[in-house]
Amino acid sequence: MNQLQTWVNVPDNSDFTIYNLPYGIFKTEGKKPRVGIAIGESILDLHEVHKLGFFKDLTLPDKIFRKKYLNDFIALGRPIWSAVRKRLIEILSVEETVLPKYADVVLKPQNEAIMMLPVKVGDYTDFYSSIEHATNVGKMFRDPENALLPNWKHIPVGYHGRASSILVSGSPIHRPKGQTMPPNATQPVFGPTKRLDIELEMAFIVGRETNPGQSIPVDKTDDFIFGMVLFNDWSARDIQKWEYVPLGPFLGKNFASSTSPWVVTMEALEPFKVSGPEQDPKVLPYLNYNGDKNYDIELEVSLQPQDGEENIISRSNFKYMYWNMAQQLAHHTVNGCNVKVGDMMASGTISGKEVGSYGSLLEITWSGKNPITLNDGTQRTFLENNDTVYLRGHAKKGAIRVGFGEVSGKILPSIDV
Amino acid sequence: MNQLQTWVNVPDNSDFTIYNLPYGIFKTEGKKPRVGIAIGESILDLHEVHKLGFFKDLTLPDKIFRKKYLNDFIALGRPIWSAVRKRLIEILSVEETVLPKYADVVLKPQNEAIMMLPVKVGDYTDFYSSIEHATNVGKMFRDPENALLPNWKHIPVGYHGRASSILVSGSPIHRPKGQTMPPNATQPVFGPTKRLDIELEMAFIVGRETNPGQSIPVDKTDDFIFGMVLFNDWSARDIQKWEYVPLGPFLGKNFASSTSPWVVTMEALEPFKVSGPEQDPKVLPYLNYNGDKNYDIELEVSLQPQDGEENIISRSNFKYMYWNMAQQLAHHTVNGCNVKVGDMMASGTISGKEVGSYGSLLEITWSGKNPITLNDGTQRTFLENNDTVYLRGHAKKGAIRVGFGEVSGKILPSIDV
Repeated sequence: MNQLQTWVNVPDNSDFTIYNLPYGIFKTEGKKPRVGIAIGESILDLHEVHKLGFFKDLTLPDKIFRKKYLNDFIALGRPIWSAVRKRLIEILSVEETVLPKYADVVLKPQNEAIMMLPVKVGDYTDFYSSIEHATNVGKMFRDPENALLPNWKHIPVGYHGRASSILVSGSPIHRPKGQTMPPNATQPVFGPTKRLDIELEMAFIVGRETNPGQSIPVDKTDDFIFGMVLFNDWSARDIQKWEYVPLGPFLGKNFASSTSPWVVTMEALEPFKVSGPEQDPKVLPYLNYNGDKNYDIELEVSLQPQDGEENIISRSNFKYMYWNMAQQLAHHTVNGCNVKVGDMMASGTISGKEVGSYGSLLEITWSGKNPITLNDGTQRTFLENNDTVYLRGHAKKGAIRVGFGEVSGKILPSIDV
Repeated sequence: MNQLQTWVNVPDNSDFTIYNLPYGIFKTEGKKPRVGIAIGESILDLHEVHKLGFFKDLTLPDKIFRKKYLNDFIALGRPIWSAVRKRLIEILSVEETVLPKYADVVLKPQNEAIMMLPVKVGDYTDFYSSIEHATNVGKMFRDPENALLPNWKHIPVGYHGRASSILVSGSPIHRPKGQTMPPNATQPVFGPTKRLDIELEMAFIVGRETNPGQSIPVDKTDDFIFGMVLFNDWSARDIQKWEYVPLGPFLGKNFASSTSPWVVTMEALEPFKVSGPEQDPKVLPYLNYNGDKNYDIELEVSLQPQDGEENIISRSNFKYMYWNMAQQLAHHTVNGCNVKVGDMMASGTISGKEVGSYGSLLEITWSGKNPITLNDGTQRTFLENNDTVYLRGHAKKGAIRVGFGEVSGKILPSIDV
């Protein structure tokens, strides 16, 4: 790619360069929600750009960017995603002479906008695709000697999560209450979770629907994946531990998940493809993929106590994933399960090999045995009320930086009833 | 209730008496989908009834019955559900003199209508609330000596299923393909499931939304449950068995579930309330309910081979459920998980104590060990291609009969990608 420059002001180290152009839904004073593109510290209002005729060759519907969700735009399909991106790069480049005249109309400061949930999520699936995470959890929840279950290297294990409780970054998280079986107790007890945790994840957004009975072959998934977000799969470990056999996590997870507001497209992430870990034993043919399907995306988790400073408690990378998104989607649909535009499919916790790269407090503190000490001298095993957690991520290659911004959430006390 | 009679022709033993009045979405030649009520062998077209002014005292929105889904009507709330029901009983009673004059406009034969999915399902949850079913499955999948896991009598165990693949009765079911580990094999194999099964279930439909963080107390659930359907949770046992640890069923279930098209309201089911099984040990206070919360609903499963007769392979009853719907909903939201109008929550397989009342082939044939013989002399362990399965259910008390009609599905071969 040639070096691209834009007429919009983009600070050094911005996640939102002209190479990125992530989509979101934003709202400003007195206006209805609409589709925007993050660029530097601004939002390019695509509805205004469209009204000015800059997409006229693409025959897009008039109101396609005056929507509460990205779903209708996404449903136009991959050739349109690509054509709009190409046009956006043109009109944002320094060579463009017309659009800059309308800067006042089409650019909004990000700090004056409210970001909304980017897609209407039909179904949400959570995978479990980091071998390091699955091994760590297996050691703690089950058997240290046989941490990885027999199916794990044959199947990208996943389960269905709750779509209704996917919240946009910044939404407060009320500490969930629930039933737990304390260690050595004989009767369960009820109360707010004592082991509230985060899970550092990324999720992809389905871009094209299938019919019931239809499968997506592993080498045809590109048309079906629109883009990616950062994803925090909040978890209550004590509730999860008591409930999860035999049907999997339920109330330990479904009280809330948080997504970043900006959806980074797969096209923007193309330069950051890398090879994944070797898969041994060999996978069945329907999971056998060609080419590089992992992505080198640096990730970090930061914890901020009330009135305190941020503490980076983990640095991980999306490239560690054992199972990639093409395999996840091929597996998910191999039985004929139909997918819809806007479905979210999360990676599972993204842990690396060392404690400093683990993606959950469960792993970082090894189930609470090894508390971490924050800058202010306080300790944490799990999250306290009024803690705020930020997940951040970006990819970088030479002059090209493509970032996800952040997803944050602050822990509030449980609500009575 | 006084004996009610209607001017509409209702055959003896009809599920759709004037005591019932279930809601559905139907489509007839050249017309858009709309809301109807089943009565006898007819559908009362509520949009036409509304246009004629029969609901004018209720100040309903003009287009409330000209919809693809019941969600908007349901969202009007329980006082409206009740007021519309009262009005429907009035205008369908033999005393009514005006509506019968418009019979040609407002009544459509059921056999000329196409029934559609009644609600847009946001999230779908499947519980596991029959102690007989959980015990049977535990014996087969796990340990015959400790079939019921330690949490089962403390928690209405449930998990999230797939909303996108909930299909209306009559939709064909393509045999799912997937990965399985055959007995005594050391490597998994891929192919169409060899153990395709049904699960006899009922599901309730959420009628009122909550906010994240909010819980529904067990004695306040009536406002939040609109009505019920028959539900077939198709299952591929070989896929399920290999995949389900540790995160629960996924591809063994999510290829399809089928729902009956008519939603029977909780008000119609009120006369059939009965007490549930004693819960021992005592449940935690948030699950402690008052009054009768089970329902006496007779259920049957019928299997019809290609060009053959129907064979009733199970007779069960919804009253067997150990955990009731009030407890399921209270538990589901106790952690602050928000619910939305149209969410479906299924009971889990409804098995009684004897083989003849088991709600799945897995249990009826005891994992394939005891095949059943059909009228035509053929045997079944699990479903064959071109088999059709019907679930039916009704409640009866003296002259009052309230039925669900049926949910059916025919098994077709797998689709070659």
